[in-house]
Amino acid sequence: MSELSLDPGLYRELVRRALAEDLGWGDATTNVVVPPDARASGVLTARADVVLAGLDVAVEAFRQLDPAVAVDARRRDGDRCRPAEPIAEITGLAAPMLTAERTALNFLRHLSGVASVTRWLVDAGGGIRIADTRKTLPLLRVLQKYAVRVGGGVNSRLSLDEGMIIKANHVRVAGGLRTAVLRARAARPDTPVDVEAATIADVHEALDAGAAVILFTGSSTDDLRHIVHLSTGRARVVVSGPIPVDRVAVLAATGADTVSTGSITESAPAADISFDLRPL
Amino acid sequence: MSELSLDPGLYRELVRRALAEDLGWGDATTNVVVPPDARASGVLTARADVVLAGLDVAVEAFRQLDPAVAVDARRRDGDRCRPAEPIAEITGLAAPMLTAERTALNFLRHLSGVASVTRWLVDAGGGIRIADTRKTLPLLRVLQKYAVRVGGGVNSRLSLDEGMIIKANHVRVAGGLRTAVLRARAARPDTPVDVEAATIADVHEALDAGAAVILFTGSSTDDLRHIVHLSTGRARVVVSGPIPVDRVAVLAATGADTVSTGSITESAPAADISFDLRPL
Amino acid sequence: MSELSLDPGLYRELVRRALAEDLGWGDATTNVVVPPDARASGVLTARADVVLAGLDVAVEAFRQLDPAVAVDARRRDGDRCRPAEPIAEITGLAAPMLTAERTALNFLRHLSGVASVTRWLVDAGGGIRIADTRKTLPLLRVLQKYAVRVGGGVNSRLSLDEGMIIKANHVRVAGGLRTAVLRARAARPDTPVDVEAATIADVHEALDAGAAVILFTGSSTDDLRHIVHLSTGRARVVVSGPIPVDRVAVLAATGADTVSTGSITESAPAADISFDLRPL
Amino acid sequence: MSELSLDPGLYRELVRRALAEDLGWGDATTNVVVPPDARASGVLTARADVVLAGLDVAVEAFRQLDPAVAVDARRRDGDRCRPAEPIAEITGLAAPMLTAERTALNFLRHLSGVASVTRWLVDAGGGIRIADTRKTLPLLRVLQKYAVRVGGGVNSRLSLDEGMIIKANHVRVAGGLRTAVLRARAARPDTPVDVEAATIADVHEALDAGAAVILFTGSSTDDLRHIVHLSTGRARVVVSGPIPVDRVAVLAATGADTVSTGSITESAPAADISFDLRPL
Amino acid sequence: MSELSLDPGLYRELVRRALAEDLGWGDATTNVVVPPDARASGVLTARADVVLAGLDVAVEAFRQLDPAVAVDARRRDGDRCRPAEPIAEITGLAAPMLTAERTALNFLRHLSGVASVTRWLVDAGGGIRIADTRKTLPLLRVLQKYAVRVGGGVNSRLSLDEGMIIKANHVRVAGGLRTAVLRARAARPDTPVDVEAATIADVHEALDAGAAVILFTGSSTDDLRHIVHLSTGRARVVVSGPIPVDRVAVLAATGADTVSTGSITESAPAADISFDLRPL
Amino acid sequence: MSELSLDPGLYRELVRRALAEDLGWGDATTNVVVPPDARASGVLTARADVVLAGLDVAVEAFRQLDPAVAVDARRRDGDRCRPAEPIAEITGLAAPMLTAERTALNFLRHLSGVASVTRWLVDAGGGIRIADTRKTLPLLRVLQKYAVRVGGGVNSRLSLDEGMIIKANHVRVAGGLRTAVLRARAARPDTPVDVEAATIADVHEALDAGAAVILFTGSSTDDLRHIVHLSTGRARVVVSGPIPVDRVAVLAATGADTVSTGSITESAPAADISFDLRPL
Repeated sequence: MSELSLDPGLYRELVRRALAEDLGWGDATTNVVVPPDARASGVLTARADVVLAGLDVAVEAFRQLDPAVAVDARRRDGDRCRPAEPIAEITGLAAPMLTAERTALNFLRHLSGVASVTRWLVDAGGGIRIADTRKTLPLLRVLQKYAVRVGGGVNSRLSLDEGMIIKANHVRVAGGLRTAVLRARAARPDTPVDVEAATIADVHEALDAGAAVILFTGSSTDDLRHIVHLSTGRARVVVSGPIPVDRVAVLAATGADTVSTGSITESAPAADISFDLRPL
Repeated sequence: MSELSLDPGLYRELVRRALAEDLGWGDATTNVVVPPDARASGVLTARADVVLAGLDVAVEAFRQLDPAVAVDARRRDGDRCRPAEPIAEITGLAAPMLTAERTALNFLRHLSGVASVTRWLVDAGGGIRIADTRKTLPLLRVLQKYAVRVGGGVNSRLSLDEGMIIKANHVRVAGGLRTAVLRARAARPDTPVDVEAATIADVHEALDAGAAVILFTGSSTDDLRHIVHLSTGRARVVVSGPIPVDRVAVLAATGADTVSTGSITESAPAADISFDLRPL
Repeated sequence: MSELSLDPGLYRELVRRALAEDLGWGDATTNVVVPPDARASGVLTARADVVLAGLDVAVEAFRQLDPAVAVDARRRDGDRCRPAEPIAEITGLAAPMLTAERTALNFLRHLSGVASVTRWLVDAGGGIRIADTRKTLPLLRVLQKYAVRVGGGVNSRLSLDEGMIIKANHVRVAGGLRTAVLRARAARPDTPVDVEAATIADVHEALDAGAAVILFTGSSTDDLRHIVHLSTGRARVVVSGPIPVDRVAVLAATGADTVSTGSITESAPAADISFDLRPL
Repeated sequence: MSELSLDPGLYRELVRRALAEDLGWGDATTNVVVPPDARASGVLTARADVVLAGLDVAVEAFRQLDPAVAVDARRRDGDRCRPAEPIAEITGLAAPMLTAERTALNFLRHLSGVASVTRWLVDAGGGIRIADTRKTLPLLRVLQKYAVRVGGGVNSRLSLDEGMIIKANHVRVAGGLRTAVLRARAARPDTPVDVEAATIADVHEALDAGAAVILFTGSSTDDLRHIVHLSTGRARVVVSGPIPVDRVAVLAATGADTVSTGSITESAPAADISFDLRPL
Repeated sequence: MSELSLDPGLYRELVRRALAEDLGWGDATTNVVVPPDARASGVLTARADVVLAGLDVAVEAFRQLDPAVAVDARRRDGDRCRPAEPIAEITGLAAPMLTAERTALNFLRHLSGVASVTRWLVDAGGGIRIADTRKTLPLLRVLQKYAVRVGGGVNSRLSLDEGMIIKANHVRVAGGLRTAVLRARAARPDTPVDVEAATIADVHEALDAGAAVILFTGSSTDDLRHIVHLSTGRARVVVSGPIPVDRVAVLAATGADTVSTGSITESAPAADISFDLRPL
Repeated sequence: MSELSLDPGLYRELVRRALAEDLGWGDATTNVVVPPDARASGVLTARADVVLAGLDVAVEAFRQLDPAVAVDARRRDGDRCRPAEPIAEITGLAAPMLTAERTALNFLRHLSGVASVTRWLVDAGGGIRIADTRKTLPLLRVLQKYAVRVGGGVNSRLSLDEGMIIKANHVRVAGGLRTAVLRARAARPDTPVDVEAATIADVHEALDAGAAVILFTGSSTDDLRHIVHLSTGRARVVVSGPIPVDRVAVLAATGADTVSTGSITESAPAADISFDLRPL
């Protein structure tokens, strides 16, 4: 999918449910503190270095409570924002803006967090690709994978129906790596088979059985270099696991194709973005 | 709510949707690699120090795909687990276990991550309470707030309908802190009013208007000490914001009641827990 | 539909949503007051004369929270129960029973209320039929119409797709009663047309245009008697509107076929039924 | 929550489902009787003394079928309307108005019914507060509780997650009133505990254990007066149960704080409001 | 229901789900090939003789992805279209039109297919009515039955709650045709009973028991002629089963009332309609 | 995906909704004709040559209404069944079986219809692959694509997120075939690009731009032979469009790889399968 496209159909319902989750039986504070016809203007502002992701999702939260809200976007998804830099100004009725604020920020801070850590890894390495995994937060995968693309990463498969990846658990249950790969290839001859391999012996077995991608889960850089050598012209090599940022360049130098890591989606800290209102 | 209770009605639908999100049109690998009647036993294992949270949720993922699965739980939510310590053993058909594995782990690793960072803060301080906020990940709030309780934290309000918290944005739109508090008290005389205050002047104004809780968002420890002194017998003092773990004990020493921080829900790294299958 | 049948598919989802509505984020009291393994037995008891309706719906509420609950039903839907008469005994875990109690009673008291007022009208008259209307409480129509049958009433159409009923508003917008009826008959020659009529002139016009049912909305008993005379052999006569119980026998004596009244569904007071637990 | 606020997010989905419930496979009458481009104007009119509640909900029903409908509201929620008094005029296409009419009225008549009986009780007493309960009609609670506020009543807890109320069933299962209250206070020291008490002995036990609110379910006015005396300075006293309107002033005179009664939500008769169309 | 009316409430949700089914995680091609602001005009064109049905449904698919789309309809539901005849022109943003195209066509081609085969049967016979059955494609019944009406057919009952039809399976389980009919009539005296009959003996038994409609499932034209004779003045005769188009006139000549056949909904081939875009 | 696997999670909700669609407010006939405790045994029987598909889906319909139903399957998906051959015997309560029958058959007859026409094409050709398209019936795609696999066909992409297929409409809007292909390749270098081509000139342009698959939509067999020649070693050739069964072998002889046709999913006639009950 193109890096920065995100069909509104993919998040409208999520935003609706998130607003309902936060609203409960109604906003007990805003309704008694703010006159219903008061108008205000609010600015989304970065408070740290962040890669912006999810601005349309955040705006959707404001729009669902006040369809007449006006949005003046200064930045767009993928932009790096500096501390104190305004991202967008939202103008409309004050009360629905106050009610939607937290939901809008919860999406925006999380998705920008994912994009930011992805970009940090992308920038750390000598051109090696940074890929995500299926280690995503439940119900948020489509948005998280979008944020990974925004951060310059690439998406691995979105769900279990795409491609075949044989993991160590499959191998143990199938009775061997070779058996597993051969079964997969027999069932779907046109589809490349990815295989998790922890050792060089695994890699030999996988390559001989016809694996198209080696997902190396070991930790030795020497082993990795050897595996890239073995696989050249036969399979792509993907390094899998939690990868410290200072190891990315080292891994890139081995000739491996891609680093695939769950931490960019399951452990990304929120990006620091605030929303400050002033009355009109 | 009692710390460790979590009604299954609160997560069954979430698990169902999370499985659907991961399943897509079906598990392309397992179905061709694993015989449908193969049985296996899998162990959930901690690979780092973690506070366990969400075991029932993870088990629900396995159960939804194979209702006949047997579960032998060695640990329960709230337990600290050491690296390599087995948490639970799951026995049943291999194929559905492989299909459910990622969804089960995505819940368990995230919730245990939230519980672990919460416990870390709780343990760091001299008895000050650690509270969460509404800075949660969309659609996961009820589970995240449960994980906070499991980690020894306390829940602030679950949604906008509970209690009244007047924030800086409310104050600006209402035309002043005092106005906002008085409106809130007039509308609901029996309900305590919480007020965000960044300065000592704010605190004076809030106390005079009858605030029941001061949410101090400033950063000065001296100011905080002063505020606790001012508020004694009039209001509880809650310190709000991102709080480094090494500042918790300092804050506790001021006499403040609670630290309220969004980072335990919006920035918690996943806990390292694995699932390893062997054939039966 | 047969009087007393109610397919579980028609209420399972309603019960699920009603439990979720009452549960919110969890039962804050039961979880801390009742040990999770405590068992109890509870008796549903009438505290007034009631016609029972909705016992299976109430049981479903208990079952959804504890599938292992045992039910010993002493009475069934349609039975008249005397004050202090036990209806059913439910045995199982105490905590889920306490959590489900209110939802179970809310269904049972409301549906038994509808059945009781319906039976009261049925018993008041000389054999005239008591029919409901579409004046039902939103989202509860299928259950309310079932309760009407339980009380000995008959169902008018369930929704707008069944049969054609031309009301005064249709007549005014269509430009005349005769025009409206002729349009309806031309569009669907096989379908009988019901027509609301407030005066004898209306009735003449409706009969001449071929109405199959006259819904008389006027209040004069003499007029009604006249209308029944006019309609004999041409159309059924239904008296429509809020009907005091002491007028039913008078209406029956006119030879009218049916009394149709919204009050049995939109204004039925709850039947007094309690649930009393004792520990096991 | 502020008395008269009702976020549209709280009823849009309910209205959508209620329309679907009434529509079935389509409106069999209107479609053949009314030309699709005919326009009309309809007036919602009180036919008895009613306290209006739910006008926005009724309008939503019309709007969902014809977004271009124009609404001229003469009265608003909380207003007392006299018989024959026009409430609002709706102008638009005749056909969708006829299709939506019943759903709009079903909401409006029910909610105004709840508001009207609440106001009746409020006006009957010497200032004692009238509170609702969780005895609500399934799936309609949020709207019913809003109507209670519109009628001048106050809301007790919305769902089981709010506050702790120990009822007779809890007491029996927990093994005693004192045990139950102490467990509740130990689990959540900051949260007040409400306790149902049927006798003066119960009240003594509850007060000694630290109850913050006594829910008196007995019927003796003398007992109540005694209980208010005992509780002064220690707990609020709420009288609970079905309360005849002529007893409200008597109860107020005892010094009790609040009357809490399910009848305003589970037994409120529909308010008599009609909708009369004329062609344009 | 009027032949050509189809309330948008009946298909909006279906279209939403169908778009989601086709969209998956987003349109991988359009997003990278077509500039987001490119505009285009597309023409829906018949490529064979078709009876048009479902144009509003197809338009809804385009509108859900681009609410600003302009539609110039040249033909409407029920029209016969010749090969190469333009049906409607849609103008708007190119990208959402490309994304919605397949969903729009899937509805339009299927529904026009149903209308076309229905019209073919209607035109084949000497005025006998062509009715559908409950042999419809799951989740599409309301739309298929609409397409049958568009094609000049009539709808049999929409779902199991409408009318009583006693089939051979009912008869066997009830212990005889007579028993089954008598039970049905006793339970609901006002409702006509339809009875499936395969032989003349069945017909005698059904008529004697009071059947209002005979559904003849046999294949002999002579038998049918006899049955029509037997039933005259007592019951309507409907011929049921898969009916070749060249048999319709023969059946009409017997005096039977209606042909009821599942093939028009469960076996209708798609109508050949295309959508051709050109850039603006 | 493996040919014959179909995760129950993919159809449970569809079956639930299809039953609700057919049930409406309840089964008006069965409930009054069949005693609630009557038991019966029913046999699903082929009445023509069919390739069976969807047996588990049909069984699910029976199971959802009677979880205790016993199933004795004689045949399984993919089997060819002869006329009068029993497929499976279902034993349980008669009433729910009668209520579920139509829904079960609607799924089974449709899916077996899809599998049968697919197998017919597969058998007709000299080994050329038969692939489906996105021309599926709304909401039934996952089941239809499964039935295609059961019939020996292969699935093209399931939804718009999989792979890139540039169609004639994309080409016109993008401003040329070459431009479109180059944009696609630039955006996602690792993903093969499929291109629709109607002429030999189109094929040259597509191959030069780097298309991986040529979808030939023309009708000339000579052109096709030429295109296969041109594409050898550069791209796979897929023939796209409605393909008469007697043309399949001719197409296979050209060396083309695959025939891709929408007719197997959008125009498959229902397979003739019946369900006959007998009392127990």
